[in-house]
Amino acid sequence: MLLFYQPDILQGIHHLNDEESRHAVKVLRLGVGKEIDLTDGQGRFYKAVITDAHQKKCAFEITETREVAAFPLHRHIAIAPTKNIDRIEWFVEKAVEFGIDRITPVICDHSERKVIKQERLHRKALSAMKQSLKAWFPKIDEAMSYKQFLAEAQADHKFIAYVDHDNTDYLSRLKQDSGSHLVLIGPEGDFSENEIALAQKSGFQKVSLGPSRLRTETAGIAAIHLLNL
Amino acid sequence: MLLFYQPDILQGIHHLNDEESRHAVKVLRLGVGKEIDLTDGQGRFYKAVITDAHQKKCAFEITETREVAAFPLHRHIAIAPTKNIDRIEWFVEKAVEFGIDRITPVICDHSERKVIKQERLHRKALSAMKQSLKAWFPKIDEAMSYKQFLAEAQADHKFIAYVDHDNTDYLSRLKQDSGSHLVLIGPEGDFSENEIALAQKSGFQKVSLGPSRLRTETAGIAAIHLLNL
Repeated sequence: MLLFYQPDILQGIHHLNDEESRHAVKVLRLGVGKEIDLTDGQGRFYKAVITDAHQKKCAFEITETREVAAFPLHRHIAIAPTKNIDRIEWFVEKAVEFGIDRITPVICDHSERKVIKQERLHRKALSAMKQSLKAWFPKIDEAMSYKQFLAEAQADHKFIAYVDHDNTDYLSRLKQDSGSHLVLIGPEGDFSENEIALAQKSGFQKVSLGPSRLRTETAGIAAIHLLNL
Repeated sequence: MLLFYQPDILQGIHHLNDEESRHAVKVLRLGVGKEIDLTDGQGRFYKAVITDAHQKKCAFEITETREVAAFPLHRHIAIAPTKNIDRIEWFVEKAVEFGIDRITPVICDHSERKVIKQERLHRKALSAMKQSLKAWFPKIDEAMSYKQFLAEAQADHKFIAYVDHDNTDYLSRLKQDSGSHLVLIGPEGDFSENEIALAQKSGFQKVSLGPSRLRTETAGIAAIHLLNL
């Protein structure tokens, strides 16, 4: 099933944007009368029929709407972008496949990558949402400094994940059945002692993702997978 | 920590192979007297001192041996190789990071990729083992047909994972605390009805990896992550 994306359907925008229109009309050669499936990324799937197969502004008429319940927990991962950009994009793709509400790139003391284009991660998330037929599109923040992130971080349950072979406070056991969950994943060189102390002062609980030493993007995937169990 | 690999240390082979020697001597410029860390991929870490910095046959003397306990379950994933080879390589890398004992590429009815070089997956696993400082190297089989795989598949607990939104037999609940576990992951187009029937006749239990529709490599990662919890 091919899924198109139009976030503003309820605001009355009943046409695809530039890129989606080009894909529908020029690439897939869908014409007037053809039925398409869409999501607004806010929990709704739609069936619609193309009314104007315009390659920049493909218009449609909604025939059916289906709401998808939100996941019982709000799932937010804050993660240090990896030096190799493929790896953090891969994390974004997998996180969307499993189900995620918000992703915040955080630049840490030991981060090798200090800059990342939110647009790139946004595109990756969008393509993953469409491929995995999800109705919920995560919020993807612009990269921010560690201090700014801590100042803004809001959640009922906040966790900082790091490598510690002796720590048996596993996220799998500490996660709750409801409420907003925020898991902070550090860079390859781990958090600095100062960062861990600041996080704890901000109400973050130290957790382990298991005894294995995981790459940043793997730790991110482990965390989002656990939040979804 | 840099980890070198020599599987035959106990067989008396106290030198690195061609490639590892070149890396140690030509790239890293390690010389006689330098201490190195090694694993034999069979649960042992070694500390050793270089005795001959030969670029094709770097010899060493073992000074210390440390055994790492085997994981309480034997973890075997059989998985349909993805059309895009990067994806199945990602799976291998992540599986080794989490911990895995055996990987079998299985060619299914709906497989888009019918051939895969075991050597490629072997190299990926090796590099992941060294990077994540593991002492256990998984067995990686040559790709085999679905029928051949079923004929050979041995495990105390055998599972076939597939997409079914109504199935609540989650692997997370059905996995046991001990014994060998084998999880079979299908291609993007899922297993054929015939394949599912054959698997059930061979003692495979149908399981779900959750309500989300996952790509093949993501399903593989979910499964191995669960087996390691």
